[in-house]
Amino acid sequence: MNMGRLERLRLEVADDACILITSPINVRYLCGYSGSNALLLSTATASSLITDSRYAIQSAQECFDVEIVVAKSGVLGVALGLIDCNELVIEAEHMSVAMREQISTGRPELNLTHAQGLVEKLRVVKDAPELEKISVACQIATAALERLAGYLRPGLSEREIAQHLEYTMGQLGADDKAFDTIVATGSNTAIPHHQPTRRLVEAGDLIKIDFGAKVAGYHSDCTRMFVAGSAAQWQLELHGIVRDCQAEASRALHAGVLTSHVDTVARDLMQAHGMGHLFSHGLGHGVGLEIHEDPYFSSQPATTIKQGTVITVEPGAYIPNQGGVRIEDTVVVAEVGCINLTDFTYDLITIG
Amino acid sequence: MNMGRLERLRLEVADDACILITSPINVRYLCGYSGSNALLLSTATASSLITDSRYAIQSAQECFDVEIVVAKSGVLGVALGLIDCNELVIEAEHMSVAMREQISTGRPELNLTHAQGLVEKLRVVKDAPELEKISVACQIATAALERLAGYLRPGLSEREIAQHLEYTMGQLGADDKAFDTIVATGSNTAIPHHQPTRRLVEAGDLIKIDFGAKVAGYHSDCTRMFVAGSAAQWQLELHGIVRDCQAEASRALHAGVLTSHVDTVARDLMQAHGMGHLFSHGLGHGVGLEIHEDPYFSSQPATTIKQGTVITVEPGAYIPNQGGVRIEDTVVVAEVGCINLTDFTYDLITIG
Repeated sequence: MNMGRLERLRLEVADDACILITSPINVRYLCGYSGSNALLLSTATASSLITDSRYAIQSAQECFDVEIVVAKSGVLGVALGLIDCNELVIEAEHMSVAMREQISTGRPELNLTHAQGLVEKLRVVKDAPELEKISVACQIATAALERLAGYLRPGLSEREIAQHLEYTMGQLGADDKAFDTIVATGSNTAIPHHQPTRRLVEAGDLIKIDFGAKVAGYHSDCTRMFVAGSAAQWQLELHGIVRDCQAEASRALHAGVLTSHVDTVARDLMQAHGMGHLFSHGLGHGVGLEIHEDPYFSSQPATTIKQGTVITVEPGAYIPNQGGVRIEDTVVVAEVGCINLTDFTYDLITIG
Repeated sequence: MNMGRLERLRLEVADDACILITSPINVRYLCGYSGSNALLLSTATASSLITDSRYAIQSAQECFDVEIVVAKSGVLGVALGLIDCNELVIEAEHMSVAMREQISTGRPELNLTHAQGLVEKLRVVKDAPELEKISVACQIATAALERLAGYLRPGLSEREIAQHLEYTMGQLGADDKAFDTIVATGSNTAIPHHQPTRRLVEAGDLIKIDFGAKVAGYHSDCTRMFVAGSAAQWQLELHGIVRDCQAEASRALHAGVLTSHVDTVARDLMQAHGMGHLFSHGLGHGVGLEIHEDPYFSSQPATTIKQGTVITVEPGAYIPNQGGVRIEDTVVVAEVGCINLTDFTYDLITIG
């Protein structure tokens, strides 16, 4: 068995220090707690979860590797009372200014150190239980898309399509949608992050569907394209280029590659087709307990992709006021290449 | 026309100061912006919204009462460059420690003042456009519950019931669910905030449904009870007492009353039936751009309820391992009494 999550955190904590985890996502990652009110306190050798009585049973069922403290008063006050060292490391991007003031007032002698991205860094490489949950979230998403393909037809609104897809994911076992489903039709496909409207699908429309399922806290993310009736030449061309770009970028992805390299591969291909300026967003982002998390494909800063990273590959090209195409997979990075978790045809699928 | 929202905020800002609003909910309330990346900066006389180019069109469509600044680099840096005063008021409970550090570094000469609840205070009394949106969210919820009543039957799982209800709200025009729908059946009703499971409805089960719709950012919140087949005597009694308690508390609610008074009315009635210890949660909470917001019915601290406040009235009683009942309305406080926005029978509805 690999080293535990909290064990890896503890390696970052100095002997006379302890760390206070305030981000609910990071708390969940480290010890399994999924409720709404808890703090995690860890020294280099031991960890405590402080929660309230509403979560006494739930935390006992969910948590691993921590001692559970059920606070009779506010969890922060109880946590502060447990600290027995001189230095307290805090999550600077997750703790509010007001909470930091409470700590300074409650334990004025504590030396506060501001850390950033400490747990996020640990979350980049997924362990086996995480990969299992993300895989299930991806399988539910693609199975729902398969069902949606048989339902899609002219006359449906973007909102109806989104609702149908979300309902189907629930029926297939999703706990929730991973994020607000994007359904864009016709010229709305030119807007990268369009919100579904009451616009109805018309013959000749491109249909862009960007969606995902959430399972046990973990997300999936997938985009595929449909066309109502016969595709126009420009639609086929745009789709073909983005499809090639998505395949090329995926082929460039493996453990040890720089994020900037994969990004350049994708952008160079779009540029070669004179479409560099139409690819107006990032190539992809990590996926896990958050729908957007480290790492990101980008050149500034470039980072080395590690085996076990789950990330999206999602190039797009958008012609203003006319239409756009995006194709997106969620993949897990392997030693050689990567494994696609959102297995679904890349064709421009004809419906209606 | 009443005084505008930003106008009311500006009354709180000193002449040589400005305030930086970082909470997305508070930004939306004050100027209408509903995107994901903006800061609002206001002096006593003028206000600017700083966002990025992705939101140039959307912010121009949505915003009122502000000058819109589309930042070419990070929004915080651009906002700091616009500050032309000595004192900067920040939202201490919404700003991260990391952002405060960026401000101290970027503009070290600024005197930072920590405010709490400044905008939340303004949000307590709803204006006409807000009441309209909350009313629509409530109407969609109760219309969906009406449809659900015809669908409910033994053999359905808690998850299926929740999914059906959420799908129906979408079909009726909701943008989303207001929060994760609670469907509890049988002894699960004894858990106040139960998460829907695969448990199937059986004959004799109580069914507790706590749910709401979201419309244009505003929420609704409603709880009603069903029973599969004939109700047992204990179920009828428990339901009757909670129903009386809900009616009594609603009758006690009007502009000018103390939150503690309404709370005492409800708890005294439960106590008189020997059930005080079974009512283990708050009597209600404000509803608006957040599903839980000020004010709360509580004795510590007691506040005076104002006309135009939207709040839930939701007593409950839970017998461990056996079953529980909660009945909840979302109401708007009037000069005399209050108006129920979630109009739906209070009966223990028999299904199946």
